[in-house]
Amino acid sequence: MSSIFGNKIKVSVFGQSHSKAIGVTIDGLPAGIEIDIDELQEFLNRRAPGNNEFSTKRKEADKPEFVSGLVNNTTCGAPLTALIYNTNQKSNDYKNIMDIPRPSHADYTAQVKYGGFQDVAGGGHFSGRLTAPLCVAGGIAKQILRQQGIEVFSHVSSIKNIKDDDLDKVNPDKDLLNKVINKPFPVFNDLKGDLMMKTIINAKSESDSVGGTVECVITGVKAGLGNPNFDGIENKISSIIFGIPAVKGIEFGNGFSSTLLFGSENNDEYYYDNDEIVTKTNNCGGILGGISNGMPIVFKVAFKPTPSIAKEQNSVSFKEKKDTKLVIKGRHDPCIVLRAVPCVEAAAAIAILDLI
Amino acid sequence: MSSIFGNKIKVSVFGQSHSKAIGVTIDGLPAGIEIDIDELQEFLNRRAPGNNEFSTKRKEADKPEFVSGLVNNTTCGAPLTALIYNTNQKSNDYKNIMDIPRPSHADYTAQVKYGGFQDVAGGGHFSGRLTAPLCVAGGIAKQILRQQGIEVFSHVSSIKNIKDDDLDKVNPDKDLLNKVINKPFPVFNDLKGDLMMKTIINAKSESDSVGGTVECVITGVKAGLGNPNFDGIENKISSIIFGIPAVKGIEFGNGFSSTLLFGSENNDEYYYDNDEIVTKTNNCGGILGGISNGMPIVFKVAFKPTPSIAKEQNSVSFKEKKDTKLVIKGRHDPCIVLRAVPCVEAAAAIAILDLI
Amino acid sequence: MSSIFGNKIKVSVFGQSHSKAIGVTIDGLPAGIEIDIDELQEFLNRRAPGNNEFSTKRKEADKPEFVSGLVNNTTCGAPLTALIYNTNQKSNDYKNIMDIPRPSHADYTAQVKYGGFQDVAGGGHFSGRLTAPLCVAGGIAKQILRQQGIEVFSHVSSIKNIKDDDLDKVNPDKDLLNKVINKPFPVFNDLKGDLMMKTIINAKSESDSVGGTVECVITGVKAGLGNPNFDGIENKISSIIFGIPAVKGIEFGNGFSSTLLFGSENNDEYYYDNDEIVTKTNNCGGILGGISNGMPIVFKVAFKPTPSIAKEQNSVSFKEKKDTKLVIKGRHDPCIVLRAVPCVEAAAAIAILDLI
Amino acid sequence: MSSIFGNKIKVSVFGQSHSKAIGVTIDGLPAGIEIDIDELQEFLNRRAPGNNEFSTKRKEADKPEFVSGLVNNTTCGAPLTALIYNTNQKSNDYKNIMDIPRPSHADYTAQVKYGGFQDVAGGGHFSGRLTAPLCVAGGIAKQILRQQGIEVFSHVSSIKNIKDDDLDKVNPDKDLLNKVINKPFPVFNDLKGDLMMKTIINAKSESDSVGGTVECVITGVKAGLGNPNFDGIENKISSIIFGIPAVKGIEFGNGFSSTLLFGSENNDEYYYDNDEIVTKTNNCGGILGGISNGMPIVFKVAFKPTPSIAKEQNSVSFKEKKDTKLVIKGRHDPCIVLRAVPCVEAAAAIAILDLI
Repeated sequence: MSSIFGNKIKVSVFGQSHSKAIGVTIDGLPAGIEIDIDELQEFLNRRAPGNNEFSTKRKEADKPEFVSGLVNNTTCGAPLTALIYNTNQKSNDYKNIMDIPRPSHADYTAQVKYGGFQDVAGGGHFSGRLTAPLCVAGGIAKQILRQQGIEVFSHVSSIKNIKDDDLDKVNPDKDLLNKVINKPFPVFNDLKGDLMMKTIINAKSESDSVGGTVECVITGVKAGLGNPNFDGIENKISSIIFGIPAVKGIEFGNGFSSTLLFGSENNDEYYYDNDEIVTKTNNCGGILGGISNGMPIVFKVAFKPTPSIAKEQNSVSFKEKKDTKLVIKGRHDPCIVLRAVPCVEAAAAIAILDLI
Repeated sequence: MSSIFGNKIKVSVFGQSHSKAIGVTIDGLPAGIEIDIDELQEFLNRRAPGNNEFSTKRKEADKPEFVSGLVNNTTCGAPLTALIYNTNQKSNDYKNIMDIPRPSHADYTAQVKYGGFQDVAGGGHFSGRLTAPLCVAGGIAKQILRQQGIEVFSHVSSIKNIKDDDLDKVNPDKDLLNKVINKPFPVFNDLKGDLMMKTIINAKSESDSVGGTVECVITGVKAGLGNPNFDGIENKISSIIFGIPAVKGIEFGNGFSSTLLFGSENNDEYYYDNDEIVTKTNNCGGILGGISNGMPIVFKVAFKPTPSIAKEQNSVSFKEKKDTKLVIKGRHDPCIVLRAVPCVEAAAAIAILDLI
Repeated sequence: MSSIFGNKIKVSVFGQSHSKAIGVTIDGLPAGIEIDIDELQEFLNRRAPGNNEFSTKRKEADKPEFVSGLVNNTTCGAPLTALIYNTNQKSNDYKNIMDIPRPSHADYTAQVKYGGFQDVAGGGHFSGRLTAPLCVAGGIAKQILRQQGIEVFSHVSSIKNIKDDDLDKVNPDKDLLNKVINKPFPVFNDLKGDLMMKTIINAKSESDSVGGTVECVITGVKAGLGNPNFDGIENKISSIIFGIPAVKGIEFGNGFSSTLLFGSENNDEYYYDNDEIVTKTNNCGGILGGISNGMPIVFKVAFKPTPSIAKEQNSVSFKEKKDTKLVIKGRHDPCIVLRAVPCVEAAAAIAILDLI
Repeated sequence: MSSIFGNKIKVSVFGQSHSKAIGVTIDGLPAGIEIDIDELQEFLNRRAPGNNEFSTKRKEADKPEFVSGLVNNTTCGAPLTALIYNTNQKSNDYKNIMDIPRPSHADYTAQVKYGGFQDVAGGGHFSGRLTAPLCVAGGIAKQILRQQGIEVFSHVSSIKNIKDDDLDKVNPDKDLLNKVINKPFPVFNDLKGDLMMKTIINAKSESDSVGGTVECVITGVKAGLGNPNFDGIENKISSIIFGIPAVKGIEFGNGFSSTLLFGSENNDEYYYDNDEIVTKTNNCGGILGGISNGMPIVFKVAFKPTPSIAKEQNSVSFKEKKDTKLVIKGRHDPCIVLRAVPCVEAAAAIAILDLI
């Protein structure tokens, strides 16, 4: 199950950081949907590495090759498979990971689980590179959802202690959000964005890294989507979001902040707005009992600081069975939050599409 | 899928707040496991209503009747089904919910999804009462896990802005935790507990409610459990935890706080402790790449304030298609966090058992 | 997974032959469907034991008690759970099965799989009695399907070498089929039915048993239902049909006979019948590429002779680790084909409903 | 779900007859298993087209390219993906299928299901060509099973009314079977094989086609594998076997023939053979209650005659909404049974591996 997500549509991600290719198969897409390949590529470019000084210098075009499921760029009902060939691997950088696990990476846990047979190069199947095929699937899901009036937007809501302006959870401005997601640094408040960038650059210059949060809003979901118990919108979104490397938390609507409020403050009261039932506030993030209430679906995701840092760290040697020091070489993002923004959108789009 | 959780074991919850019975079927349990029914009942009593002034006055014994799957209290390989008969319903209290949805409850979303055919009495299938069969399954899961050296503990980590003492994530004291979970108010620091209780009582006296957080620690999970991508420990736990009503957020290890740290602060460095590889800190909450690293698994859950409050609220009338006022009658917990503590343990135990 | 069937709807069967109750949970039924309980009971009576001299003398009313999922006999969107309490067990009859496995029963395989912890009384979870809850689910599925113009009929197509008349696969006569399924011995040709009955009675008088086949036709399925590959109608139906005890084969349309024909004989040619595309023959049984073509769906199921026979048989003693003799006591059907007829209908109805 | 099979391992097949590539992803393979690529290729060659006069003249090397999941030909725990690039398509042959459906092909059902967007070239996703990636997965499964002492063999048990010699279901001769499966025409009795070949050639010369049966035996499965109800060996095997195009029936052990026997004839009596419990006969095909009893697992599959025949046939024109004639051009197997033999082995191996 580990690399397959969904019930009605099945998104199956494969590949390792340095395997011949990475890719995705999407089973269950309706037939007759034309995919705008250029738009998809633009979406993928938002995630692609090598774009700026905040991300790894590994250069990959991340251009998917569709080997099945499309006829004239239109879905034909058969499973859609897209490959992205890996071209810019530097496997030599990873030789000693087999012996000395990087702190807070999956090196040690993979070593135990796979008994030394895991592909260590570039983090193997655990690499953030696997979010590229996730974004292929998510970019396609976004296009399908938009045809149904549903849109998904994310922004960097914080880097370390620097916070972006708050999203309007009740009436998010879609024009503004469309501009935000296409900024090189996707925030509402560019002054805050500048501070965030400085924070990242400073961390990098100190051979260190930082984390942050990504906020996501899904507009246009009508009331009645989702299910109670274990198949609600929150369950569905969280179970795919935790498939993105470095995610350590998720909250919907007010989330953890709602625990600081009285019920009378946190409850979202209903009223009629032109024959439509809406709420005055959106503290629940558009979800009640696992089911959408017609308000925007809002959630926030916590990304830990990139575990790969250039600073010397303590670790152990499996072979020598003793403590040792480790200096990580190679090309790494000092902050993965920026590139995670489209990944969060992709994951959310897949989750919602699977529920429709 | 909505009421069934798991892959290797399938936990299927059924019933409504006021149906003849609620219950659970567990498919996939190994044969030959003796269930300690008394211990299970003690666990269920931690969740049962009517125990104190902080919870609803509805009295239910929550005594499960096992109709299949056990021979002499020992699992026989066939699906285990347990029923809890509902005895103390007062359906009259819920008559007008069909017309006027309670803010931040699932009344409105259920109305849209089920077209008015949903069982509204007591919240129907969305009721917190459905956590009783979840606890039956979880209590059994806990017994099975303990035979394998795995234990699950939770405490009230906060009520509104009052916080309990911090859990030691690296070396949790299991004796202490065993005492804590059996306290009437399960906190480390009883002075803080007293403040929490006052906070709840005050809210109740103001016809209001409060929320809080529950922290959970799972000890004894060896390194190597879980899977990458969409079937990791975090995905699994979050997808069941969001099945508990009122949950709005979850974080693992440092969670959202990790976004405030540098990588060098947040990384958990390895060292050898008597031939065993452990980490100095446990900011990752025992999970890397979806897989356990042998340290305690730690996560925290946010519960919103009980949406049922006695204060008058604004809502709408479906029939009259206009705004109206609502006063909720009936018996409700001014804070469900206390009774949620065993539910979080139950959900965590089921998630871990499903991964083993 | 073993006791749960389906994707869109999940049918979860539980219970053992001699447990307190057997039952079924159906998750995923749409809300607002009124169940005709009397009609359901009539359907269950077709399967119930003790009706005639061809079946076991165990008497069970097989009257389901609905504990959840219905409000005023109407589905409410929550999982529907029905119980049938076991009342007429005679567990003493089964004492020595723990030691001496009955040939061609699941006693030995269960012993190995469950290590002696399986419930042996009456065959435990392997008992044909578990088809009662299957029929509860199937009877409900039949009612839902009929509201959509889909009907499911089965008849005894053979007992040993006695064959009933052939079904018209192209234009099955639904009025006739409705009469057939409600006959005490459901065949087209009552003279053949008499011969079948004699065959069964003769076998019984010889302390022996016989098997046979059940043919099933599903009318009213429009073209386009089902999926290619592993989720076609044939895959779906076969995977539930083999959940009925004693089934050893299944064939669709011409089935094994099609292997004796030339392609030019077996192909079903299309023609227009009043703007509708139909086929002249129905050798494919209404399914091409896993997908319905609008013709009746037809399949046949092979039931082996009841393994429980009164004749002395050779077997082994686990305890004494040596060969021994076995005489099976207790109440058994000399032929289970008759009672299997509604079970096949039930299974087919569930499979089709899950695909819709 | 349609193109994904399995629970513990997930086999996901993708591609169309004339898409850029076809392929398979296998998720859940254990790490550390070395794949013998040459042996796999030999297995694939048994299925590959163009080998003899009984099969289509389309020439494809069917050489898989592994893009992920292997490190030095050894599984690394990540999903294994293999592609086979299509090279010898002739799409022009299929132009008029969009308008005139071939009898007993999936053209019409696909047209209805996918609304005209299906890939018609070469049968698209419904093509027998999709059994190539199934055989990649199955060939790998066979290698893994053999390391555990489990072997899978199939032979052509009949072509039209010509039957091969019977398999010894109790003590199949593995050396002989190894020779049989590697024959150009895999039968026990080569004289019968000659007759079968003549039957095929005659049909071809008459612009017609024939069908037949494939028998499969799985040796080395210990008692206790499989589950009751819906997840038994029969359910599992049948649900994948019906994913092979042209399959119309399956029977286990004696199958339909068992319906002609008395219980006393069909029952498989136990005895001790050197401390091991075995049966004198194997009429049940090694499966009781869905669970293996330690005897060889035996089943037989019915393949209808190839629907593509060169003879003129009646059909309809969608566009003109009237009856019409059809002559199928292109390259087709006059009998697909021969090439189906390794496909049946592949499917059986995957099913068994998924249960282990």
